Amino acid sequence: MKLKASLIQATAIALVAASAQANELREEALDTFLPLPSTVPAVKDNPITPEKIALGKALFFDPRMSASGVFSCNSCHNLATGGDDNLETSIGHGWQRGPRNSPTALNSVFNEAQFWDGRAADLAEQAKGPVQAGVEMANTQENLLATLNSMPQYVEWFGDAFEGENDPVTFDNFAKAIEAFEATLITPAPFDAWLNGDDDAMTPEQLAGLSQFMDLGCAACHSGINVGGSGYYPFGLIEKPGADVLPVGDKGRFAVTATVDDEYVFRAAPLRNVAQTAPYFHSGKVWDLKVAVQIMAESQLGEELTDEDATQIVAFLDSLTGALPPVTYPVLPAETAATPRPSGEIIAE
Amino acid sequence: MKLKASLIQATAIALVAASAQANELREEALDTFLPLPSTVPAVKDNPITPEKIALGKALFFDPRMSASGVFSCNSCHNLATGGDDNLETSIGHGWQRGPRNSPTALNSVFNEAQFWDGRAADLAEQAKGPVQAGVEMANTQENLLATLNSMPQYVEWFGDAFEGENDPVTFDNFAKAIEAFEATLITPAPFDAWLNGDDDAMTPEQLAGLSQFMDLGCAACHSGINVGGSGYYPFGLIEKPGADVLPVGDKGRFAVTATVDDEYVFRAAPLRNVAQTAPYFHSGKVWDLKVAVQIMAESQLGEELTDEDATQIVAFLDSLTGALPPVTYPVLPAETAATPRPSGEIIAE
Repeated sequence: MKLKASLIQATAIALVAASAQANELREEALDTFLPLPSTVPAVKDNPITPEKIALGKALFFDPRMSASGVFSCNSCHNLATGGDDNLETSIGHGWQRGPRNSPTALNSVFNEAQFWDGRAADLAEQAKGPVQAGVEMANTQENLLATLNSMPQYVEWFGDAFEGENDPVTFDNFAKAIEAFEATLITPAPFDAWLNGDDDAMTPEQLAGLSQFMDLGCAACHSGINVGGSGYYPFGLIEKPGADVLPVGDKGRFAVTATVDDEYVFRAAPLRNVAQTAPYFHSGKVWDLKVAVQIMAESQLGEELTDEDATQIVAFLDSLTGALPPVTYPVLPAETAATPRPSGEIIAE
Repeated sequence: MKLKASLIQATAIALVAASAQANELREEALDTFLPLPSTVPAVKDNPITPEKIALGKALFFDPRMSASGVFSCNSCHNLATGGDDNLETSIGHGWQRGPRNSPTALNSVFNEAQFWDGRAADLAEQAKGPVQAGVEMANTQENLLATLNSMPQYVEWFGDAFEGENDPVTFDNFAKAIEAFEATLITPAPFDAWLNGDDDAMTPEQLAGLSQFMDLGCAACHSGINVGGSGYYPFGLIEKPGADVLPVGDKGRFAVTATVDDEYVFRAAPLRNVAQTAPYFHSGKVWDLKVAVQIMAESQLGEELTDEDATQIVAFLDSLTGALPPVTYPVLPAETAATPRPSGEIIAE
């Protein structure tokens, strides 16, 4: 009896100790990260309404927003595959290749700025880029607005989404509607449940990986609500990776700021759903998440990770894979006689 | 009082007469057409289960079924835009053009056979074509199966959908699952409501168009549950349209049967949702539905339609635009290290 009692006591002490340790890790984590909110965040200068979300969803999935009629936002930011396209760099108009790996649209509303070099301040500004890029959707503002105006259902939806505006069908409103829809693409993950107090939401291996992630210094850049996405850092802080991973021609944020200090500087990648968004880096050259973790440790922290350590960190990253709220595939307005015809022609820029 | 009573009587007689006329038209229509069923139809040798539908939906939307990782079934049979791609002919692998206009996947389970020339007996056989066509998805069976087998979630889903099979991940089962999902893409329309007895489901103009459609002889080929899709007829029965609409090089069903009688013979297009699926004909050269109707009347029936008559028929065709059951956009399995890499390379056949 006595033995049994002391065993129970010892177990209880161990449990209390484990719980205290878990709480300590959680407190440390909450100093660095933030769980996703349960509601759609407010967006600057763009009140989010159900009408705007519905319009934005239609636009996001509409391939007629591209010159060819082939590509929609969802082509390269596919909500079925982690919000990206799982290609090294996207294939766009005329089978041309985009210059950088397509980042995920999921949770992107929480990034400090958009694109790998942060050249767009927000998602509305971002949305204006690919539709006009010659190697992506290759459209013009004029043709896009003519397309939208040719379909009465779209005109009505713009009117509903931007009530009270005289001329609601504008390129700005097109971008704002897409931003509103994208703001809903929030994917709560086991990591959030754990941050919120559910001890069982993450496995011991995932928690060990989280400890490492913080102790090694990964969290110095990959922090905040998106575990990244909130600061700019040189790729190769300690040691530049090879040109296969870091192509010499792409100097990152330098193109935005024209400051020598910004050569090969990129926005720290947001890591939510990273297990679903291979291949990695702006070059899209690394397909294995563990290899990507090892490259990062070496180039940014000067650490050579053991296979076991890298595996643990990958386990933690797996806990960032979240659930997308159900998206009903939209039924889009039918073209009319006035709708500009799609053109797959490649026009030299 | 007496005047009022006789007025009521006269109105009542007129209503009875109108109702009798409506019933007569309905009876005639029911001899020619069939309303869509309220349930998913049984498919030969392919019992349809929720697991198979769910798997088929995932496969239908998965761009990794193509060699490049760019195109899914939904790219050319887009459920958001009437089940087709609104292009003259589809743009596929390497920006190559397909030879014929992409037909709608909606209600296609009710077609007698698939493709413009009916060369596939059913949707499962059809599904095997585009994934392997060099100008479409450019994949091989081996690569497709390696892709599926590399993702444990897919292997599990195939196991659930084809319970009891030793090796469920096969190309046949891939096709069967897609067929099962496509069998659910049924779009009840105002025409169905009217056939089912709702006098108010169609406008007087639509009913006048229906009368014409039957009286002129359109319904001789475009009949049955899909208002077409159930027989083969020469395009240009009375008068061949110009080579812009009927390109000389595409001899239609002749390629399937090698019978001279089948030169320029095509499956009568199923007309459900036709208002959403411009451009028209196998060549995709005609964008205006009214013009398409006029070309058909002339080439198949030797009738020159007035603008008013063509407008009425178009009104009837509008009543065939139906509602797709809500489709929740799938979340697909993530690739693994074993997943074959996408390749946009164009390999000469």
